[in-house]
Amino acid sequence: MKKALLASTSTLHGQGYLEYLIPEIKIFFDGVSEVLFIPYARPGGISLDKYTKMAAIAFSKAGLKLKGIQEYQDPAEAVKNAEAIFTGGGNTFLLVTQLYRKKVMKVLQEAILSSTPYMGTSAGTNIAGLTMQTTNDMPIIYPPSFKTLGVVPFNINPHYLDPDKNSTHKGETRETRIKEFHTLNTQPVIGLREGSWLEVSGDKITLKGKPEARIFKPEQVPFEVETATSLKNLH
Amino acid sequence: MKKALLASTSTLHGQGYLEYLIPEIKIFFDGVSEVLFIPYARPGGISLDKYTKMAAIAFSKAGLKLKGIQEYQDPAEAVKNAEAIFTGGGNTFLLVTQLYRKKVMKVLQEAILSSTPYMGTSAGTNIAGLTMQTTNDMPIIYPPSFKTLGVVPFNINPHYLDPDKNSTHKGETRETRIKEFHTLNTQPVIGLREGSWLEVSGDKITLKGKPEARIFKPEQVPFEVETATSLKNLH
Repeated sequence: MKKALLASTSTLHGQGYLEYLIPEIKIFFDGVSEVLFIPYARPGGISLDKYTKMAAIAFSKAGLKLKGIQEYQDPAEAVKNAEAIFTGGGNTFLLVTQLYRKKVMKVLQEAILSSTPYMGTSAGTNIAGLTMQTTNDMPIIYPPSFKTLGVVPFNINPHYLDPDKNSTHKGETRETRIKEFHTLNTQPVIGLREGSWLEVSGDKITLKGKPEARIFKPEQVPFEVETATSLKNLH
Repeated sequence: MKKALLASTSTLHGQGYLEYLIPEIKIFFDGVSEVLFIPYARPGGISLDKYTKMAAIAFSKAGLKLKGIQEYQDPAEAVKNAEAIFTGGGNTFLLVTQLYRKKVMKVLQEAILSSTPYMGTSAGTNIAGLTMQTTNDMPIIYPPSFKTLGVVPFNINPHYLDPDKNSTHKGETRETRIKEFHTLNTQPVIGLREGSWLEVSGDKITLKGKPEARIFKPEQVPFEVETATSLKNLH
């Protein structure tokens, strides 16, 4: 049975890395002894090893071992053999490029569909959607494709941010950007605010955490959904 | 002689479309009777014709006629024969995709290098850099390449935005994003704040307008440059 925990952000303001998620991580990975970490998104250009160390410290607080995919000779094999997988945030273009180059994208999809528990934060959550095209990141590298895992039948915008009504800046708001996405694409988009996550369990998809989420569909007025809402029919 | 006016934004807060640039447009396009408009970036998904109408109204205030590229049967020929060209803002991924699909990218580059005056705002300015990879836009479509015109020997980040020190949001700041760009790319980046523009005249590149601009180079602390600064040696 497909099992995923897809968080908008790894970190809440004023807290440590993954701090608010530790209780969830304990429950989600119950019975797992070691988690495979995919650090390819390299936030701020941090090295794979440094990023893995950071994640390992956080996971140790949930009583879990964590090992970076770069420690294996064959990354695709590592994914196939993993008990459970966590993909951290950073730059989505870099993450997707690496997943394709290392031939991990397809096996990762297969692993998740055949019941390997998958957790993502930020970029790691974005790639659980149909495509990476609702990322907020800069295109710092040219990926072979924008197609991603499709763990959920819609697209995800992590770190969703409401328009600042007092702003004098003329750059597009997040809502305007997603509206532009819908002039060329039809799948729904969920704007996941920081502090919320999706829990996927087989066919069930449930919104969790404190903030409401915002749903965008082509040619429809966006609307809010509350925590505990089922998103099974969002496609 | 190469001649370009590259503005961060089309519109300042509380003003009409291109309002603050009308005096500059008059001087820049002096002697030109008709400007070719490239509306491919379609801000908010607006139609090519509607966008052209909007730009034509603004240009008429500078005493200039403006015609949309979509009104010509052969867009590449239209670029070759244009007296002067203006590319408006919107979504950079869409703009670049269309420039490649319509076989306009190369002829546009050639036209600018052989003295056709070129004006850009926002996405139209971003594509004057070496690559589009310092855009702020969502990847709503997959372009054949990220390479752009190279009118200037660096990359441009339009609508540059300083970090909000009071923010509790954990998404990356603009500075963090450009830092990530520099972990994989070497060209300098200019963060052009709204209200500023670059004036290119042959080999000369000068910062104009009110706000300072911010320069980013790999492994260097970013720094500010004042209006009237020559950027000829930024490469």
